[in-house]
Amino acid sequence: MSVLDECHYHVGVENGVSVEVGGERGAIEDAVRVLLLGLGEDINREGLLKTPHRVAEAFRDGTRGYHQNVKDIVSGALFPESGLESSVGSAGGAGGLVIVRDLDLFSYCESCLLPFQVKCHVGYVPSGQRVVGLSKLSRVAEVFAKRLQDPQRLADEICAALQHSIKPTGVAVVLQCSHICFPNSQPDPSHQGCVRLSVMSGSGAFVDKKSGIWTDFLGLLKFRGLTADATRSLEKSWCPSRTICKTAASDPSLLSAVSSILYALGEDPLREDLIETPARFVNWLMNFKNSNADTKLNTFVRGSMRESSLTPPSHICSELNLPFWSQCEHHLLPFHGVVHVGYYSSGRAAISSVGKSLLQSVVQFYGFKLQVQERLTRQVAEAASSILGEDVIVVVEASHTCMISRGIEKIGSSTATIAVLGRFSTDPTARAKFLQIIPSSA
Amino acid sequence: MSVLDECHYHVGVENGVSVEVGGERGAIEDAVRVLLLGLGEDINREGLLKTPHRVAEAFRDGTRGYHQNVKDIVSGALFPESGLESSVGSAGGAGGLVIVRDLDLFSYCESCLLPFQVKCHVGYVPSGQRVVGLSKLSRVAEVFAKRLQDPQRLADEICAALQHSIKPTGVAVVLQCSHICFPNSQPDPSHQGCVRLSVMSGSGAFVDKKSGIWTDFLGLLKFRGLTADATRSLEKSWCPSRTICKTAASDPSLLSAVSSILYALGEDPLREDLIETPARFVNWLMNFKNSNADTKLNTFVRGSMRESSLTPPSHICSELNLPFWSQCEHHLLPFHGVVHVGYYSSGRAAISSVGKSLLQSVVQFYGFKLQVQERLTRQVAEAASSILGEDVIVVVEASHTCMISRGIEKIGSSTATIAVLGRFSTDPTARAKFLQIIPSSA
Repeated sequence: MSVLDECHYHVGVENGVSVEVGGERGAIEDAVRVLLLGLGEDINREGLLKTPHRVAEAFRDGTRGYHQNVKDIVSGALFPESGLESSVGSAGGAGGLVIVRDLDLFSYCESCLLPFQVKCHVGYVPSGQRVVGLSKLSRVAEVFAKRLQDPQRLADEICAALQHSIKPTGVAVVLQCSHICFPNSQPDPSHQGCVRLSVMSGSGAFVDKKSGIWTDFLGLLKFRGLTADATRSLEKSWCPSRTICKTAASDPSLLSAVSSILYALGEDPLREDLIETPARFVNWLMNFKNSNADTKLNTFVRGSMRESSLTPPSHICSELNLPFWSQCEHHLLPFHGVVHVGYYSSGRAAISSVGKSLLQSVVQFYGFKLQVQERLTRQVAEAASSILGEDVIVVVEASHTCMISRGIEKIGSSTATIAVLGRFSTDPTARAKFLQIIPSSA
Repeated sequence: MSVLDECHYHVGVENGVSVEVGGERGAIEDAVRVLLLGLGEDINREGLLKTPHRVAEAFRDGTRGYHQNVKDIVSGALFPESGLESSVGSAGGAGGLVIVRDLDLFSYCESCLLPFQVKCHVGYVPSGQRVVGLSKLSRVAEVFAKRLQDPQRLADEICAALQHSIKPTGVAVVLQCSHICFPNSQPDPSHQGCVRLSVMSGSGAFVDKKSGIWTDFLGLLKFRGLTADATRSLEKSWCPSRTICKTAASDPSLLSAVSSILYALGEDPLREDLIETPARFVNWLMNFKNSNADTKLNTFVRGSMRESSLTPPSHICSELNLPFWSQCEHHLLPFHGVVHVGYYSSGRAAISSVGKSLLQSVVQFYGFKLQVQERLTRQVAEAASSILGEDVIVVVEASHTCMISRGIEKIGSSTATIAVLGRFSTDPTARAKFLQIIPSSA
């Protein structure tokens, strides 16, 4: 893709505020209503009433780069800066490598429409006694991150746009990308729920990946021992949606709803890399289809481990770090994390492995639907209480994609919720004891 | 301050875009020109031409909270969420504590007008079977962070605003704040160039700092062993500008320029906490007053350690982690970090401690002025070359306040620049060898 294509989707920008294209937002809202109905939800439920609006806003914010222009960003931010006065070498505005490291970005995966996280490192070698304002390297990267992307294409587009607009001796871009795993894929546990991929792109003096300037750049990034060739191994299996076995064909009305979202964002749903995106997105979303809670809850209760002993329960037992996946009903974006359950046991023996897997089933059952974390916490506590007795404490710790991929972009933030039943609601010491058990790294 | 005062500075908001108040920006730009002249700068120099505009933009962006309204943010984001159905205890929309942890914020110190960094943790106990959208806790905190602040007042205002708008059983706020040190203050080296302060605020069920609910909250924040009373010790010495000995009285025209900025932002320059702010800001800024470079550079050269030996220099020596302070000439905001210098020495002995302190003087001399990092790197390399010979490599690693406190808010990003003279410009192996020596933690 040529860097000049950056203006392809330009629909008019005035003072940095993009001008609304008629009907675009409405089309996305309509499509979201179709998807909600496909999930078996009541679109008039209060928690969902504004979801179509929020999803449309999030998609527009997450793809605002289609409406931004690199030239507007860089123009006026090139400053004269002399090179060396007499010595032999390179420095300042004539050859001194400049690097901005560790820029946190978010982008949307074109394969599955979920956001992915990017740690971006950009370098360039100034020429013509000109340097660019440092923040512009970040702003230009952001323009291309805020589109539907693939990591390598993102790196190439940032690189080409900077080369084209600054005209330096060379530009280098390294991206370290993390894509959340899908609940039905089987990731390496060391990945901590993420698929990771590093990509790089170079132009001008950085075209040759074996050149000394790449060694300088990677040396300053402090990627000890990493070479420019060593980062492409995972490329094929990047988005987990591509490796999941296909399920039965999806409802055509759902596929066409997703296509209409792509179209409304200014994309071509028939572009090769997007052609299977609606199927992958619907496949992912249907993990969270509503089902009849009461039926399954009875199964849990029938399998209950409630102790019939008359001895009063005396010490706190716990099941920690039960993983879960869920989908935020306000934004149709995933949140995931772990559940910790505490309860009283009268004997030394805690629940058996059967009991643990029962708790994990409870957590998964209440996770796989449109949710809010507060409700998930309450529902797990009530179900756990039917298994473990009336004294139960449940803590849910989660990362919300909606907190990091939309306007507020609070990377690294996490949410904790708590439910306390029976003795745990009246005894602060019991609560404190349990909270001390929860590992800090969770 | 009452939470109702939040609307005090409201000047009109339409669709989230604040309406310009006539002349406000012009007044800030005029004041910045006065300050630049006071620094001995040529306000028509190309690098400074747009600085008044950029500073005005940064101040307006950094204080946009004066024009935001908490009610607009929270309204429409309260969702029905039931509590426990039959059990005894609290969960969901009736008593289940909800916490959002590790929100990164930036605020402006009302004592010295420099930005400070905040790690914000917010919790509340829902009541009335209502929960608030999680992102709203962050958005409300942001409204008060984007004002001229003091840490305790910031915590109190966030807390009061959430209590007032959500009406829950209680709200708790913990802020961990970091303020950059001043170059002429003498911080504890363990502070890594920052003054740190933790503050907390509680309302409703959190008014009593000894209550069990505070223990729950701090337990979920995983501040092992920290109690609600243990966080106020540093309060008096928070802003380093308050502990610095007063210098001679500043030029009244500079003081009045800063007052006019405060006024243009919608503040009252006669408010008690602001009355000495202009003097403190000017005092800080004048650290970076322009001086005659040539005179002092001659001093460095006279003190040169250049070796007269005829043996060709054979191995790389280095001086690492020379600290520096500087002021970004594009935004009038500090950047600071370390300089690493490499050179060739023919003998085993590297430069003496006199030589090291000479290098440190060079670094400080070129740091204490309005700068860009690329120029600083070149100037240090040229001066080092006059001391150490023609084969010199200089790496500057810095954090730029302008990269984290304005619109782009790239927390954790850092910038590296390099200058290579003589043999280092032609020998990639020599460069690689030196880059390997630089510690990763720098």
